[in-house]
Amino acid sequence: MSLGGIEAGGTHWNCVLSPDGEEIDRVESFPTTTAAETIARAIEFFAGVPDLEALGVGSFGPVEVRRDSPRWGTITTTPKPGWRDTDVVGPLAEALAVPITLDTDVNVAAIGEWRRGAARGLGTFAYVTVGTGIGGGVFAEGRPLHGLLHPEVGHIRVPHDRERDPFEGSCPFHGDCLEGLASGTALRRRWGRPAEELADPAAWDLEAEYLALGLSNLVLVLAAERIVLGGGVGRAPGLIPRVRTRLREILAGYIDRPQLTTDLDAYLVPPALGHRSGLVGAIELASRAREPR
Amino acid sequence: MSLGGIEAGGTHWNCVLSPDGEEIDRVESFPTTTAAETIARAIEFFAGVPDLEALGVGSFGPVEVRRDSPRWGTITTTPKPGWRDTDVVGPLAEALAVPITLDTDVNVAAIGEWRRGAARGLGTFAYVTVGTGIGGGVFAEGRPLHGLLHPEVGHIRVPHDRERDPFEGSCPFHGDCLEGLASGTALRRRWGRPAEELADPAAWDLEAEYLALGLSNLVLVLAAERIVLGGGVGRAPGLIPRVRTRLREILAGYIDRPQLTTDLDAYLVPPALGHRSGLVGAIELASRAREPR
Repeated sequence: MSLGGIEAGGTHWNCVLSPDGEEIDRVESFPTTTAAETIARAIEFFAGVPDLEALGVGSFGPVEVRRDSPRWGTITTTPKPGWRDTDVVGPLAEALAVPITLDTDVNVAAIGEWRRGAARGLGTFAYVTVGTGIGGGVFAEGRPLHGLLHPEVGHIRVPHDRERDPFEGSCPFHGDCLEGLASGTALRRRWGRPAEELADPAAWDLEAEYLALGLSNLVLVLAAERIVLGGGVGRAPGLIPRVRTRLREILAGYIDRPQLTTDLDAYLVPPALGHRSGLVGAIELASRAREPR
Repeated sequence: MSLGGIEAGGTHWNCVLSPDGEEIDRVESFPTTTAAETIARAIEFFAGVPDLEALGVGSFGPVEVRRDSPRWGTITTTPKPGWRDTDVVGPLAEALAVPITLDTDVNVAAIGEWRRGAARGLGTFAYVTVGTGIGGGVFAEGRPLHGLLHPEVGHIRVPHDRERDPFEGSCPFHGDCLEGLASGTALRRRWGRPAEELADPAAWDLEAEYLALGLSNLVLVLAAERIVLGGGVGRAPGLIPRVRTRLREILAGYIDRPQLTTDLDAYLVPPALGHRSGLVGAIELASRAREPR
């Protein structure tokens, strides 16, 4: 038998197979073009797998993840051209005729890190990715959190000292929310160059400041046991240690747990699975789709 | 049989009995004095109940709520004089010899609103109380959230426009966190009078601004299905409608759910049980203590 997984991202889709829910065998990656073309390529990949048993999908969003909704599996209000109101799960289910489980791309990456990575077996944690945008998957008491829709931690508000940083923010909805101040898009607009070409320590101090303010809010609202920080910007050398330092200072010892006073090195960590968190999570979802619900 | 509940607050303790887990029969209220004296009064109250079967306790915090911790039931880093490192559950358990269940005062109020109030049966919501301080109980996917310790939503950071509001904040740990800017203590310090004597509309606009910023963060991190806003300051006439208006504006339609775009009246609500949320929640905890775990 084979389990299939799709990491359905806004720029690339990755399709993956696993013979046993552990090992990951084969990955095919292609750019996210039109909805019809992209979904068709995924179908083509999995249609060639005769023993496909179930499929797990982690999708960019906002996406309807409530199984009982008539729009289950539909990408809704995305600003991505041509993708608004796209039913992703429907065509896959029809063409492949296997059980499908779906969650947001960031919840699926969180599931991967929970299953085999940096958040193994934890009850309550957040997986935060800082790239073009900022997103986050949340586990609460051992399960991915959905709630009204799903968490959108990138869009929380944090203090913005306009004397230190007059940049007005890049979020088309909120201006200077966390994503508007600290995403890769924000860095590029503020400093006139992409994050990977940014060497000014002041720029990275400011970045660490915003991320630490944002993460402190996650710590306090969720009582998170750990935070996994990934994504293209999140991987920048030296960033996580700077964020740890400011996070400890911002929390100021109020939460009297060693994780947040002395052991920040084990509290705020990069993803243990690197780029593969979402693939591992998608296979885990597939293995759950297979089981009786 | 009788179920007992204690609302163990920082200024008052309320003890309550219920014959059936529904009806609330008798309440005794006394001020929170020294730890020994206050706990002794609660023991005295319940020792006179011959058929007491179980006890539910909602305690001010920070309090150790992990049942497997050797410090379970101990109030830890409270700044309240004489209460630091006070074992609350130990003496009650020893004297009364009944099963005890414990949670934070705000989680217990959330349990009350979930059981019979404004959040009946919801999976994911927050109960936020704005009084002398700001606290919040959180339900995630149908259960009170604990995580590393328990949520401390009052201490999240929100934007603070020092031109509009030069007040530096009243929180001894964080200065201008949400509690430092919007609690009753902050209002008294900033305006020189208690909230109940504050009539200036500009003061209440500022209060609504901070609360809406803080609650928007809860909405985005938790994907909360509803927020219940209570407490002495939270009850101020006209405050909740102001907060609803600003909350809708701050979220700016990003979460495309009617609850957050058009139906805010049903989204941000006062506690349906008024002052009794915590008592109902404590009895609910007691009824769970009685059941096999």
